[in-house]
Amino acid sequence: MTVADQMLATHPKIGSAAAQDILLRCIERCVECAQACTACADACLGEDMVAELVMCIRRNADCADICAATGAVLSRQTEPDAATVRTLLEACRTACASCASECEQHADMHEHCRVCAESCRRCEQACADLLATL
Amino acid sequence: MTVADQMLATHPKIGSAAAQDILLRCIERCVECAQACTACADACLGEDMVAELVMCIRRNADCADICAATGAVLSRQTEPDAATVRTLLEACRTACASCASECEQHADMHEHCRVCAESCRRCEQACADLLATL
Amino acid sequence: MTVADQMLATHPKIGSAAAQDILLRCIERCVECAQACTACADACLGEDMVAELVMCIRRNADCADICAATGAVLSRQTEPDAATVRTLLEACRTACASCASECEQHADMHEHCRVCAESCRRCEQACADLLATL
Amino acid sequence: MTVADQMLATHPKIGSAAAQDILLRCIERCVECAQACTACADACLGEDMVAELVMCIRRNADCADICAATGAVLSRQTEPDAATVRTLLEACRTACASCASECEQHADMHEHCRVCAESCRRCEQACADLLATL
Repeated sequence: MTVADQMLATHPKIGSAAAQDILLRCIERCVECAQACTACADACLGEDMVAELVMCIRRNADCADICAATGAVLSRQTEPDAATVRTLLEACRTACASCASECEQHADMHEHCRVCAESCRRCEQACADLLATL
Repeated sequence: MTVADQMLATHPKIGSAAAQDILLRCIERCVECAQACTACADACLGEDMVAELVMCIRRNADCADICAATGAVLSRQTEPDAATVRTLLEACRTACASCASECEQHADMHEHCRVCAESCRRCEQACADLLATL
Repeated sequence: MTVADQMLATHPKIGSAAAQDILLRCIERCVECAQACTACADACLGEDMVAELVMCIRRNADCADICAATGAVLSRQTEPDAATVRTLLEACRTACASCASECEQHADMHEHCRVCAESCRRCEQACADLLATL
Repeated sequence: MTVADQMLATHPKIGSAAAQDILLRCIERCVECAQACTACADACLGEDMVAELVMCIRRNADCADICAATGAVLSRQTEPDAATVRTLLEACRTACASCASECEQHADMHEHCRVCAESCRRCEQACADLLATL
């Protein structure tokens, strides 16, 4: 049981167990993806061919910021605003898809891009799954 | 001329002056609103009637996170992803409107809620204005 | 193997395996603690006795911000600035200790405070361990 | 009167006017510097000579994260923890000095580095001034 899971399970205002699973997965993937994107932007910056990775660094930076905000908003369960959650998940899904597409083009050359792209795809799917329940 | 303005004007990849004005205003209002919401959440927390301000604190926390992410994404002009920018602006506009509505209900009682609501409304408008140009 | 671990192992500029272990643990605990503190602030906000949890919400909010910044800075391994890393780890250790002390006082009453306090203590220790290697 | 100023003046738990001035200046400079560093990292990334700006981008990224966290922590005035504020100001001052030193080396070539270096130096000074009052 992860800490995020325990935090969710001990929250005073929490819904059904099934909704919790999808929510928890989305929180964990947002948090993981934010870290992966921050690390990938920096790893790209450390490569000799940094000039060819400019778009990748940009996509990573945006995706990191948006995943971090989404992970924080989803971690809050007291009086959530449905419209805010929904539009933010849409933005997070879009940022993850955009970053994954870019990272995938460098995945053969750079392992950090491959790992990051997979993390983005998992987060994109988790956002889509959570949106489907709202 | 603000620092944000100078940063935009000295960026190597920048569009027309008119687009710059609307973009700059949106960056500045996101940054201002993020700070105002962080401060308002904390000011509400410091009020004796904190129990009546729970929803306000929650709305402030989300709005602060989303405005901060939006201000950062908009501050980047190298290889932006249009779909990410558009969906994030939608989320920011939504969060600002939601936070403003809540803060407006306490504006007569708490000056910090009045100031914060006005900052949210300005940011909401700036997001809408920028969206209209995309 | 976590994603953070894979990101570290695939970075182009990385030191010895032993240093990596301590660094990785600190990154993961910062990221975990940031989420736990965001969730605990919100869980406290959702409790009937919110007025008694004001200091806890404040400590959580600061600790979340500082852990998030520390996790991001540590995730970057290209051209790190030793003095910045060292002073930030000191701030993170301090914020975690302060938040843990506060959460521990509510741990018997609120499970979320107990889980969060443990996460803060682990992060405090990880910062101290990493500081000892610098 | 800025919004940050109004938020501070309307906070229910606020000290003397003199302390407020120094605090307000530090909040505003942290917020300004975080935005400038985010924009400078991105402007550097958009330059043809990006490979020569790797260290600058790294310093900017760290400084942006730390200034944002510091601006948020300082914006909160309910039950502050003195040790956390002090160590964080130390980290922020250090990050600003390090980023300014690096940006200054490119200030003749890149206007965005000149503007950013000046913003970092102002924030470094504001942190030192606030530290001197604590």
